[in-house]
Amino acid sequence: MLHDPNRVYVFDTTLRDGEQVPGCQLTTPEKIEIAKELELLGVDIIEAGFPISSPGDFNSVVEISKAVKEPTVCALTRANKGDIDAAIESLKYAKRPRIHTGIGSSDMHIKHKFNSTREEILERAVEAVKYAKRAVEDIEFYAEDAGRADVEFLAKMVEAVIAAGATVVNIPDTNGYCLPDQYGSKIKFLKENVKNIDQAIISVHCHNDLGLATANSVAGLQNGARQIEGTINGIGERAGNTSIEEVVMILKTHQALGLHTNINAKNFFELSRMISTQMRMPVQPNKAIVGANAFAHSSGIHQDGFLKNRENYEIIRPEDVGFPSASIVLTARSGRHALKFHLERLGFNLNKEELAEAYNNFLTLADAKLDINDDDLLALVAHKLVKN
Amino acid sequence: MLHDPNRVYVFDTTLRDGEQVPGCQLTTPEKIEIAKELELLGVDIIEAGFPISSPGDFNSVVEISKAVKEPTVCALTRANKGDIDAAIESLKYAKRPRIHTGIGSSDMHIKHKFNSTREEILERAVEAVKYAKRAVEDIEFYAEDAGRADVEFLAKMVEAVIAAGATVVNIPDTNGYCLPDQYGSKIKFLKENVKNIDQAIISVHCHNDLGLATANSVAGLQNGARQIEGTINGIGERAGNTSIEEVVMILKTHQALGLHTNINAKNFFELSRMISTQMRMPVQPNKAIVGANAFAHSSGIHQDGFLKNRENYEIIRPEDVGFPSASIVLTARSGRHALKFHLERLGFNLNKEELAEAYNNFLTLADAKLDINDDDLLALVAHKLVKN
Repeated sequence: MLHDPNRVYVFDTTLRDGEQVPGCQLTTPEKIEIAKELELLGVDIIEAGFPISSPGDFNSVVEISKAVKEPTVCALTRANKGDIDAAIESLKYAKRPRIHTGIGSSDMHIKHKFNSTREEILERAVEAVKYAKRAVEDIEFYAEDAGRADVEFLAKMVEAVIAAGATVVNIPDTNGYCLPDQYGSKIKFLKENVKNIDQAIISVHCHNDLGLATANSVAGLQNGARQIEGTINGIGERAGNTSIEEVVMILKTHQALGLHTNINAKNFFELSRMISTQMRMPVQPNKAIVGANAFAHSSGIHQDGFLKNRENYEIIRPEDVGFPSASIVLTARSGRHALKFHLERLGFNLNKEELAEAYNNFLTLADAKLDINDDDLLALVAHKLVKN
Repeated sequence: MLHDPNRVYVFDTTLRDGEQVPGCQLTTPEKIEIAKELELLGVDIIEAGFPISSPGDFNSVVEISKAVKEPTVCALTRANKGDIDAAIESLKYAKRPRIHTGIGSSDMHIKHKFNSTREEILERAVEAVKYAKRAVEDIEFYAEDAGRADVEFLAKMVEAVIAAGATVVNIPDTNGYCLPDQYGSKIKFLKENVKNIDQAIISVHCHNDLGLATANSVAGLQNGARQIEGTINGIGERAGNTSIEEVVMILKTHQALGLHTNINAKNFFELSRMISTQMRMPVQPNKAIVGANAFAHSSGIHQDGFLKNRENYEIIRPEDVGFPSASIVLTARSGRHALKFHLERLGFNLNKEELAEAYNNFLTLADAKLDINDDDLLALVAHKLVKN
């Protein structure tokens, strides 16, 4: 399956892990619209829903399967026949169907969620994969709470499900617990110790409870994983999932990693806004890559450096992720270079003394008013000209 | 200065790096109110402003110096006498004053921002530290754009400024460029190669352009840094600074790191909301630690596990960061265990058949309506009772 060893597959779960968040629920037509945009973005897999969970979710998987051509369409199940039967049924129109089944792998989940034993859980995992494999070739297995699982047992589970037919093995940090070096080491251990690991793709599915989802995903890729799971804007259960836009732009910015995706990054900004609006989930202005301020330079030191050479303070060009343009907003912390730049933009070429005076007036105004727009600048200069 | 080798100092720059963001400007009384709350939170250093930048900012440093007792109050400067004189003057009422001076350290900044050479920049750095040191004992030096600086030159610069009197050396990843392993290696190199490094504290100041600020800060601490710089809610220039609440809770959750701060984490939630309101900077619901949904469990699989044992899906207790309570919200993805839990909470104990019927009705309702509140649940059960 893996022709190019440096290709990273992008698995979008905005419509499943994202959509289950309080207040984010979508109608089927809304999901279809987003799925088509995800196809244009270039994601490799769309997780379309959890069919057994409700008739509405089942129907969404059916309709998304009909609506998209290129991406694999994936349906979530627990490790039981009822869930898997529903998933198979819901995927019947998919050009490339995938079933995503799995079970807890940490002792915490095995004991306190399943009231079971490692042996029994392993058996249920293998049975679920075999049962799904009868109907669908592409089977992804998730080892829930792998982040807190014993790594030896996890390796045993991964080996067993690959032998049973899993094509992708998902190692979720379900609770967002791991540090990047810990999560990276876990993936490395699997890569080095699971005999049949080359017959499957390792997938990383990280949660952001400690603010580490993106870093953990990248650590996974650095250690041999080749699929990342996430959502647009990082939405999802609790503190959310990995932000796809962050991981993709890290791979683009750090070319030394030698990894690439199929993503059209220029589509990020518009899709981010569409999902934020439709799912009623605001994106904070300081959100990396897609926040309103992500490319806004405001302090004097930064604006001065930015105007001399944008690479002083800019590692990604905003247009590369579809941003309308980099914005400089003037505040009391802006320097005189920035004031000069904006006045020139408005057609005023001041000499040194005029600029000094305008800058003093600007500072007085900016201390009184929160931020300074073009009208304020014009008033500032008009006043000066009248005064002269 | 460092009595406890495992103590991590927390340097808050909400009022400087945070406040310079478009739309976030505060009045001096507002800054004083926040500074007092930061003191109650237990931060070690408050960066109160950039005194030379405007008369309002100068005044804020003066007034914050008068208003707080415990924390060090710090003022920012560039590496020149005018900036440093203003900072010294602004700090005259501070019980523990600190001057934060510095200059670019990457070749990019040296060439394209300062139009200078490594030798000249090194000289200016040393002169600035010596000049500040005449008046103030506690001098922090920032090596701007250290994330992209040549590590050998950076080591030379760090050694020189410590020799000149710097008590803290700040290694900023100004553009949020580094991967955690790269940033950690940089700190490790300084720790191992700078002869006088034990005479100063290494500080990490990371930006979030690629979503890696928190991970980079932790990587720095794992490699010998003992001060972290950040803001509440991660606000700041562009995609913002490191979120102090994230790093603090990582250290608390991962006790094996053996590191601790002086922070009263129970104050996080309230302070996060206060800063969001006063600085007009929304916190997205899926923000780690302080987002509205950070502890909200909604999917059926998660709610079921959560109700069996909260540690299945919760690595931090919400009350530990001052959250009112963990909330479970019902949606079409909720399981019947969660429905049963909420009906019992409302006083309805249904038998198995009644529950099955209520659950079917619930799913129909939840597919049509975005999320289900208590009134909806009561209507659901009342309807059933009338029907019977």
